[in-house]
Amino acid sequence: MPTVTFAFTAATASASGADAPTAAILLALAVILAAAKLGGEVVTRAGQPAVLGELVAGVLLGNLGLVGIPWAESFKTNVTLDTLAQLGVIVLLFEVGLESTVRDMLKVGLTALLVAVLGVVTPFALGWGVGALLLPERSVYVHAFLGATLTATSVGITARVLRDLGKGQSPEARVILGAAVIDDVLGLVILAVVGGVIQAANTGAELSYGAAGMIVGKAALFLFGAVALGLVISPRLFGVASRLRGRGVLLATALVFCFGLSYLAAAIGLAAIVGAYAAGLILEDVHYRDFTDRGEQGLEELLQPIAVFLVPVFFVAMGMRVDLSAFGRADVLGFAGLLTLAAALGKQACALGALGGKLDRLSIGVGMIPRGEVGLIFANIGLGLAVRGEPLVDAGIYSAVVIMVVVTTMATPPALRWSLARGDQRGSPKERGVAKIPPTL
Amino acid sequence: MPTVTFAFTAATASASGADAPTAAILLALAVILAAAKLGGEVVTRAGQPAVLGELVAGVLLGNLGLVGIPWAESFKTNVTLDTLAQLGVIVLLFEVGLESTVRDMLKVGLTALLVAVLGVVTPFALGWGVGALLLPERSVYVHAFLGATLTATSVGITARVLRDLGKGQSPEARVILGAAVIDDVLGLVILAVVGGVIQAANTGAELSYGAAGMIVGKAALFLFGAVALGLVISPRLFGVASRLRGRGVLLATALVFCFGLSYLAAAIGLAAIVGAYAAGLILEDVHYRDFTDRGEQGLEELLQPIAVFLVPVFFVAMGMRVDLSAFGRADVLGFAGLLTLAAALGKQACALGALGGKLDRLSIGVGMIPRGEVGLIFANIGLGLAVRGEPLVDAGIYSAVVIMVVVTTMATPPALRWSLARGDQRGSPKERGVAKIPPTL
Repeated sequence: MPTVTFAFTAATASASGADAPTAAILLALAVILAAAKLGGEVVTRAGQPAVLGELVAGVLLGNLGLVGIPWAESFKTNVTLDTLAQLGVIVLLFEVGLESTVRDMLKVGLTALLVAVLGVVTPFALGWGVGALLLPERSVYVHAFLGATLTATSVGITARVLRDLGKGQSPEARVILGAAVIDDVLGLVILAVVGGVIQAANTGAELSYGAAGMIVGKAALFLFGAVALGLVISPRLFGVASRLRGRGVLLATALVFCFGLSYLAAAIGLAAIVGAYAAGLILEDVHYRDFTDRGEQGLEELLQPIAVFLVPVFFVAMGMRVDLSAFGRADVLGFAGLLTLAAALGKQACALGALGGKLDRLSIGVGMIPRGEVGLIFANIGLGLAVRGEPLVDAGIYSAVVIMVVVTTMATPPALRWSLARGDQRGSPKERGVAKIPPTL
Repeated sequence: MPTVTFAFTAATASASGADAPTAAILLALAVILAAAKLGGEVVTRAGQPAVLGELVAGVLLGNLGLVGIPWAESFKTNVTLDTLAQLGVIVLLFEVGLESTVRDMLKVGLTALLVAVLGVVTPFALGWGVGALLLPERSVYVHAFLGATLTATSVGITARVLRDLGKGQSPEARVILGAAVIDDVLGLVILAVVGGVIQAANTGAELSYGAAGMIVGKAALFLFGAVALGLVISPRLFGVASRLRGRGVLLATALVFCFGLSYLAAAIGLAAIVGAYAAGLILEDVHYRDFTDRGEQGLEELLQPIAVFLVPVFFVAMGMRVDLSAFGRADVLGFAGLLTLAAALGKQACALGALGGKLDRLSIGVGMIPRGEVGLIFANIGLGLAVRGEPLVDAGIYSAVVIMVVVTTMATPPALRWSLARGDQRGSPKERGVAKIPPTL
């Protein structure tokens, strides 16, 4: 019956573009949002940050294939769903950035830089060591690459946990998020250099030191240049916008600013979320006072519904990409265990960089642990690299990296909650004293 | 320098998935939102609905290629941007649906059905006639297909204009939107039948009458079944959800309900927006009173920021697909002029179906005029159909259909604004009298 087929095709393609991809995304969004809220509810009742439940919900959805329901398979590589997830983490980092100002960040700048450098160098060395210890037969390039996969912090998880626990504005949060942004830059440099060395070894070409230098230069230009320029432009931009009359001008202008800086960051080779965080830092309440003075909602309030919609998409999608079957191989598990230990312990060196007596050093070290999607992307790049014809990263190494990412990501929410609670209890005696004076005195 | 290339690839692909597609979408979103707000501002100052400015902004962006800046070309066929646009029109129809209840709709049900049937039959006949008159050398199939492209109303434009003018809850709005939903179903049936006849003529196969019957059956099942079931499920769903503690549970539940019904509509071959509108109709304030009673924001307020973000993407993207160069061909322009006249006059027959003395019949006829993306999709399907090896729709016919769509879409906002203002002036003498009594009396 060719007619029936045509009728279906016409019907599906017709009428307001209700084409098959959109329909699939609609179902995926409905399922993801429902699973995220249910997962968040379960872990919240158990006293854990909601993000853990969203990750677990994603893992369950993504591994339904193991029990014969391969529903989520096509979504793991769906470009549109991935973009929605990326928009989610961009909105999250923008929200988190809004909670601090550039001035706040400069106060913790030196500390964040020290924390970042220590948090990149130590895991890199430890990862290299684990590789040399357990894979002595593989080349030094493999060992160096393993070190590189351990360097970059996944700021999304930590930012979300800090928000879930109402700690987004603490000095520790600023140090961690600032260091994670610098980490991102350092991780890119290491990846580029290690990748360049490997490619040079493979093709016999010369390694261009200029390439690494260029990345460092562009990153510095962005972080300092864009922020400085943004501080000049932002008040003017919102001043002009406040004269427009349409519905939602404040929110639209803020989104244009956020997406614009995110694009700039991505265009010069940084992570888009670095731009989103920078946009949030630059934007201050005073820039859009014209809007709030006439009774409009503030930006944080306006962004929240968009975050409720898009942020869970990121965390559930991240969970969906976890392949539980990798946990079933004993040799992989041992290797993954050591790699995870190197990743977690390596970031504890960050605590040494946290100068100033009042900082909760343990929480800073714990907050830097998650590798999240950054580690996965590094591993994916490794799958595509080869040394003298032999692939740099084989299935075993890849699975071990995946497990390291899963464990560091899933362990951070409860660990950070614990360490922050511990830090609060150990707060300065004066603060505790004040808190303990009964209100009747 | 292969190293530089690698460094760029690694840097672009690394770090939180800031991959090239996402970066491009970020720039597109920033440009689209900025253009939408500026375009909306200009036309609002000229007293026109903001949506007209968003369409014009889209047309300008999409035709920058004519002056040597082909920036938007890749976005016209970008699946991710299209999905974001579709999510925008889904959120818009959900919002519009929320403003009415199923009870309101049943009150105008018979009227909407009559309006819809007249608004499908008349343009179909007129379009067929225009084809027979100007293209006598082409087969009867081409004439029938031209008629079919004139049937379906693009509810997005009208819904948006009604909202821009604060008329979303008027009886006229309910008749138009209800009729547009029924139109959608009737248009699909006509397209399926005409397409089936053409395919049968081309391949020599029999036309299956059952196929058309099945579409009608499924549509009826959805419109009545889903709404009836939704009315039972919705209060329970929100009752359960109100016991969850997480952030944004009300909004997330509403989005799950909206996306779920939109998916169902798309899955059975209807437009996704039909499901979104139905979801809005079903959902009533009383279903989520548990949330608002404890001081949370209402759903309309929560949806607004998402609408501010996504709805302009739909209208700008729609404008972007307009090819201005089609306006330069004289033969096409003449044909397009008659087709546009047939489209606009054909829908005026709708006024005859508007029973009941108090309805503003002219506004109903005008509100049904826009063909928007529905007509474009019909034309696209026609490009892919052939009769005895000859393509059904050639470049000239396609351009004429595009121009008809552009003119009906762009003319509706100012025309509807004019006809609604005229209707208000002619409102019942009593109302006018009350309004004219000065407050001091």
